[in-house]
Amino acid sequence: MGMIGGGFGAFIGDAHRRASRICNEFELVGGMFDPDLEKNKKFAAAEGISPDRCYRDVDSLIKSELALPAGNRIELVSIVTPNAFHYPYAKSLLGAGFHLVCEKPMTMTVEEALDLEKTVAEKKLTFALTHTYTGYPMIRQMRELINKGLLGNIQRIDAQYYQGWINSIIYGTESRITGVWRLDPKQAGVSSCMGDIGVHAFNLIEYTTGLEIKEILSDLSPVKDDVKLDLDGTVLLRFGKNLKGVIRASQVCAGEENGLTIAVYGSKASLKWAQENPNYLYMLSDTEPTRIFKPAHGYNGKAAESGHTMPAGHPEGIYEALANIYRGVAKSIRGEAFDPGEFPTVHDGVRGMKFIHSVVESNRKGNVWVKI
Amino acid sequence: MGMIGGGFGAFIGDAHRRASRICNEFELVGGMFDPDLEKNKKFAAAEGISPDRCYRDVDSLIKSELALPAGNRIELVSIVTPNAFHYPYAKSLLGAGFHLVCEKPMTMTVEEALDLEKTVAEKKLTFALTHTYTGYPMIRQMRELINKGLLGNIQRIDAQYYQGWINSIIYGTESRITGVWRLDPKQAGVSSCMGDIGVHAFNLIEYTTGLEIKEILSDLSPVKDDVKLDLDGTVLLRFGKNLKGVIRASQVCAGEENGLTIAVYGSKASLKWAQENPNYLYMLSDTEPTRIFKPAHGYNGKAAESGHTMPAGHPEGIYEALANIYRGVAKSIRGEAFDPGEFPTVHDGVRGMKFIHSVVESNRKGNVWVKI
Amino acid sequence: MGMIGGGFGAFIGDAHRRASRICNEFELVGGMFDPDLEKNKKFAAAEGISPDRCYRDVDSLIKSELALPAGNRIELVSIVTPNAFHYPYAKSLLGAGFHLVCEKPMTMTVEEALDLEKTVAEKKLTFALTHTYTGYPMIRQMRELINKGLLGNIQRIDAQYYQGWINSIIYGTESRITGVWRLDPKQAGVSSCMGDIGVHAFNLIEYTTGLEIKEILSDLSPVKDDVKLDLDGTVLLRFGKNLKGVIRASQVCAGEENGLTIAVYGSKASLKWAQENPNYLYMLSDTEPTRIFKPAHGYNGKAAESGHTMPAGHPEGIYEALANIYRGVAKSIRGEAFDPGEFPTVHDGVRGMKFIHSVVESNRKGNVWVKI
Amino acid sequence: MGMIGGGFGAFIGDAHRRASRICNEFELVGGMFDPDLEKNKKFAAAEGISPDRCYRDVDSLIKSELALPAGNRIELVSIVTPNAFHYPYAKSLLGAGFHLVCEKPMTMTVEEALDLEKTVAEKKLTFALTHTYTGYPMIRQMRELINKGLLGNIQRIDAQYYQGWINSIIYGTESRITGVWRLDPKQAGVSSCMGDIGVHAFNLIEYTTGLEIKEILSDLSPVKDDVKLDLDGTVLLRFGKNLKGVIRASQVCAGEENGLTIAVYGSKASLKWAQENPNYLYMLSDTEPTRIFKPAHGYNGKAAESGHTMPAGHPEGIYEALANIYRGVAKSIRGEAFDPGEFPTVHDGVRGMKFIHSVVESNRKGNVWVKI
Repeated sequence: MGMIGGGFGAFIGDAHRRASRICNEFELVGGMFDPDLEKNKKFAAAEGISPDRCYRDVDSLIKSELALPAGNRIELVSIVTPNAFHYPYAKSLLGAGFHLVCEKPMTMTVEEALDLEKTVAEKKLTFALTHTYTGYPMIRQMRELINKGLLGNIQRIDAQYYQGWINSIIYGTESRITGVWRLDPKQAGVSSCMGDIGVHAFNLIEYTTGLEIKEILSDLSPVKDDVKLDLDGTVLLRFGKNLKGVIRASQVCAGEENGLTIAVYGSKASLKWAQENPNYLYMLSDTEPTRIFKPAHGYNGKAAESGHTMPAGHPEGIYEALANIYRGVAKSIRGEAFDPGEFPTVHDGVRGMKFIHSVVESNRKGNVWVKI
Repeated sequence: MGMIGGGFGAFIGDAHRRASRICNEFELVGGMFDPDLEKNKKFAAAEGISPDRCYRDVDSLIKSELALPAGNRIELVSIVTPNAFHYPYAKSLLGAGFHLVCEKPMTMTVEEALDLEKTVAEKKLTFALTHTYTGYPMIRQMRELINKGLLGNIQRIDAQYYQGWINSIIYGTESRITGVWRLDPKQAGVSSCMGDIGVHAFNLIEYTTGLEIKEILSDLSPVKDDVKLDLDGTVLLRFGKNLKGVIRASQVCAGEENGLTIAVYGSKASLKWAQENPNYLYMLSDTEPTRIFKPAHGYNGKAAESGHTMPAGHPEGIYEALANIYRGVAKSIRGEAFDPGEFPTVHDGVRGMKFIHSVVESNRKGNVWVKI
Repeated sequence: MGMIGGGFGAFIGDAHRRASRICNEFELVGGMFDPDLEKNKKFAAAEGISPDRCYRDVDSLIKSELALPAGNRIELVSIVTPNAFHYPYAKSLLGAGFHLVCEKPMTMTVEEALDLEKTVAEKKLTFALTHTYTGYPMIRQMRELINKGLLGNIQRIDAQYYQGWINSIIYGTESRITGVWRLDPKQAGVSSCMGDIGVHAFNLIEYTTGLEIKEILSDLSPVKDDVKLDLDGTVLLRFGKNLKGVIRASQVCAGEENGLTIAVYGSKASLKWAQENPNYLYMLSDTEPTRIFKPAHGYNGKAAESGHTMPAGHPEGIYEALANIYRGVAKSIRGEAFDPGEFPTVHDGVRGMKFIHSVVESNRKGNVWVKI
Repeated sequence: MGMIGGGFGAFIGDAHRRASRICNEFELVGGMFDPDLEKNKKFAAAEGISPDRCYRDVDSLIKSELALPAGNRIELVSIVTPNAFHYPYAKSLLGAGFHLVCEKPMTMTVEEALDLEKTVAEKKLTFALTHTYTGYPMIRQMRELINKGLLGNIQRIDAQYYQGWINSIIYGTESRITGVWRLDPKQAGVSSCMGDIGVHAFNLIEYTTGLEIKEILSDLSPVKDDVKLDLDGTVLLRFGKNLKGVIRASQVCAGEENGLTIAVYGSKASLKWAQENPNYLYMLSDTEPTRIFKPAHGYNGKAAESGHTMPAGHPEGIYEALANIYRGVAKSIRGEAFDPGEFPTVHDGVRGMKFIHSVVESNRKGNVWVKI
């Protein structure tokens, strides 16, 4: 396994490395961790990477690795750079035959996303998009319970993703705002809040329900006049006749840490889950006591159970969720059977890009309905 | 004190009677509890009401009571009928000089609401609209903390009111739907979900923040083809530049009991409260541990403290919240000083009616922005 | 209904009055609210009691009320004085044929308790001891679920009652300690913590399980050298072979408000409840998702359902719990059928006194087993 | 790093391997994973261990590794066998100069424990006992807040460890009971419940408060007649004058998963923590709102902060707690500065063995006080 991005100070790169070690399926042997060559080398050394596999750019990584014997070369590359680099790097690496794990949002434009989807299909490679939250056992259990039809008619879907961390930036000095890549359209793309976190809520909805959102209407806000992208917004959802929903996302809710929640309401029962307490899945009914599903119990389905390794009551967290995705990727690369829910695919990436761009379009046009 | 409506089987009338007894400011001495004369008499007897003050209609109540000496007659009338009767009865009773407590929604139309507001002003009578949730101590504390400016810039407001009870009706026999007055436009008005519960969320927002919602955009759903009113909906809110929010309400969320919540997010701190656990108010901050405010503590303001009579840790509930409103009404009738937050007024009723009608209008026009 | 004690500043007397009004079965018409005659009169006036039924002592209450026609006189007397007065007043009032509601602990000694039990049996009067927490719907549901045998073999019982309010007294000035009747053995009896709150935990165990505690071993602490009674303690419990348990109680746990909890663990399932969130009853199992029982649902038994009047999700609290006990008392006085769980009896009072005295004895003798 | 025990089906060995990979300080290069040679080899192969470092016993591991150049040989050995093997293996390995991580309980007897303590001191080696829960950031924060004196006088300490998993064994077939090593005194030692889990509660108390428990009085139960060891018990604690406490532990509480909790109550404030929701630390006070400390915030001390690597709101769990301990061990081996709280030492192991044996002695002698 190799890595692009994720050098000193990059928390998401560190998360990918830990997750790959937890699942014990991959060994990090090379990469390009930082565009600054010195930092790149230092970081590689600190991680115990051989200097000759610390590459100055993606092209040299491809060239050198392909020159190695098949059994020795990097099989999987994880792309954990700022958003703007996802597409070009992914395109090159897929072209050269590498399997990929890519951070979301997958690309900057819908066209790029569609192009990657085509490339993955042609090359028959494994491509996983790290909507990490799909790796939680109780999210997988939620998907299974819904798929079994236990909710009756699904009647309302409500997802939330609230954070507050960006307050410290937008109320800091001016240079803070300009210095944060997530607030720079060139690096982050057309959206901050919806592109970074709203899209996770979108993905969880489609992942757990198996439904497609058909149309959206959004109202976004930069919150402060000197901010160029959305930091807050609400998106009305339509799935078809008589099924509506909402996604609420914000980066300016002081004190909210990583408040991703999803609730799917049916005519017979409903399911609720919150990321900050990921080992609790609530099933509500009008006629039965509320039930709390937890990991490591025989009453769960296989997907939930295989994603939790400790006995019941020993909490696992976000790293283990990401490790579950890496384990699915390993199965796919080896050609083993795996459940389609074991990792988000390039198609989920396409859906996500369509969502982000539709949301921005709806808002720009004056809060009108836009088809996804 | 007298009562209109609230006979056998009417839970809200019973709640008003209990609340008035808890605060110990009023004695129920007469009323018209049921349009069916026999049931009316039976109910009055069961409540220990003198038969000669069990009236066949509102006019006879007015006439007979006014004939009594001032000290003996009913001072306050509580109107707890289906929605359509609120306005005509309130109009007559105010005209005759009675103070009123009225269930919400206050009227069927905005015009009626404005007319009542004018009448109350002219007559200088006390008029309380029972947005009961404003009687909870921690809601009053929330109002005070916001009013003190502790949140910094308010940046997002999110309120929810989810219930599931109507599933048993809409999936029952056809006659069930037609037999429920809340689903009959003639009795319930233009809206079911927004008129019955969404308006509570609206009221809590304006009550706790002191802000006015300027514009709304709604998307409502009857959920089933044979239902004539909205049972579910989302309302986008705008309060002014850079402050947006959302109200989410539904009566078809299986297993949700009375899921009213409100969150007000600021640049410095945020506040969250949920009706089902009303004695917990959460204050979030990016830099401090989350704080939980509870009743019966010296750190609370006067409005919160006076609304809880037991020592800390002895839970009080919805009846006590309503009793707090009745106590405020008693103060007002006696001409004592009281805090403007002690009971919702006819003006809150006007705001509520404008909200309900704006929401219905926005939805009917294709989900466009409508001024409140 | 009449009342002894409960004048200005007495929170428990106020609670009894509110509860009696909520259930709407009694009207407070007379009493002796304060041993200070002036305060007594002022308080009676403030409550709207006729001056000629504001009595200077219990004897004059008895004499005057018995002189009234049967239908007009006080039927039920609530005794809400400091502990030392419970027995003599109860004895006199029972002797004169009054039904009683009495605060706990019922008496100062076990002998007094047994004497009252004998008197109640002889006089065939209704006697209710206000272990208020037995009035909560979910405690009644807990009793029913256990009684149905759903837990399998009961294997462990654990109850807790933690408060912190006494810290402000014992770390205040010396006069504060001497001025609080709960810390004065002459007024409070042999125990502070176990007599005031530990006994509630004891009662809940016997109430919900129907089991009798056979033996106890206690370790108590005054916490500070200048305190004469226990403020903290742990009590080991034995119910019979292979069933043990524990009661933990303290008045010096800073920040604990009214932390009464009970957990009954069985071989098949377990039940957990906490007074501060009284509308949630948790049923745990090794093989099924945890279930949360809440009031106002068809899945509850009759005792739980009749104790909650609002629809699901509208929280009721401690006043309603106490009102449920008063309603049971009314049924008993009228000779109606009632469930034995509707109010704690004089026998529960005897058990409680035995518990308190056994606990003190065990501690005094050096933490040895004592039979109850 | 090498490992003794932890082959197929051993969850705790797997946990140690994952933790060592997460902290990225160690590489597993050899060991003796199973006394069955075939299983041992198979397991080593599955883990990618070189066959020549898969040893048939501890002696051959020592001999072969010592024959390797210093830089290549195993530095640290993790002992994750059944309890009876901890002491002999630890003794041999320390004698040969290996640093150790050892599962608890450390030994079978107090004498063995004292002997290991002496050996560690003489050899100046690093020895960590995996009381894993001390690796949680909020437990480290709890220790720091107490150490700073924020609680005032500590007045009561209450720890609980409830599980239910053993029900399925003791109510299974007879062979199940005899087949489980934890229920066999030869393999598990003198205690099941207190030795396996009660000792964790004991350790957390001494770890977080820095206090020593002086005396205990216990009441244990085998729960079923055919069980030879305690499955349930309560332990009264004395720390000195006016400070008492309790440890409650059980393996027969149906539905309890891994219910370890600790509460330390002071005169000014109190702290509460529960293992199943390890990222929440509650600070209670009589005069301030309850505060919730969470990881990844500037308000925490260094020990808590360094133990959580993700941003706030991204839950980390038990594996990360264990990884924190391994990271401390690595620092110690390298001779870097580290906080004494970074890993439990051989002295904690001695204290634990004394606790277990005192508890068993107190129970055997008829529930009397025994000095630790």
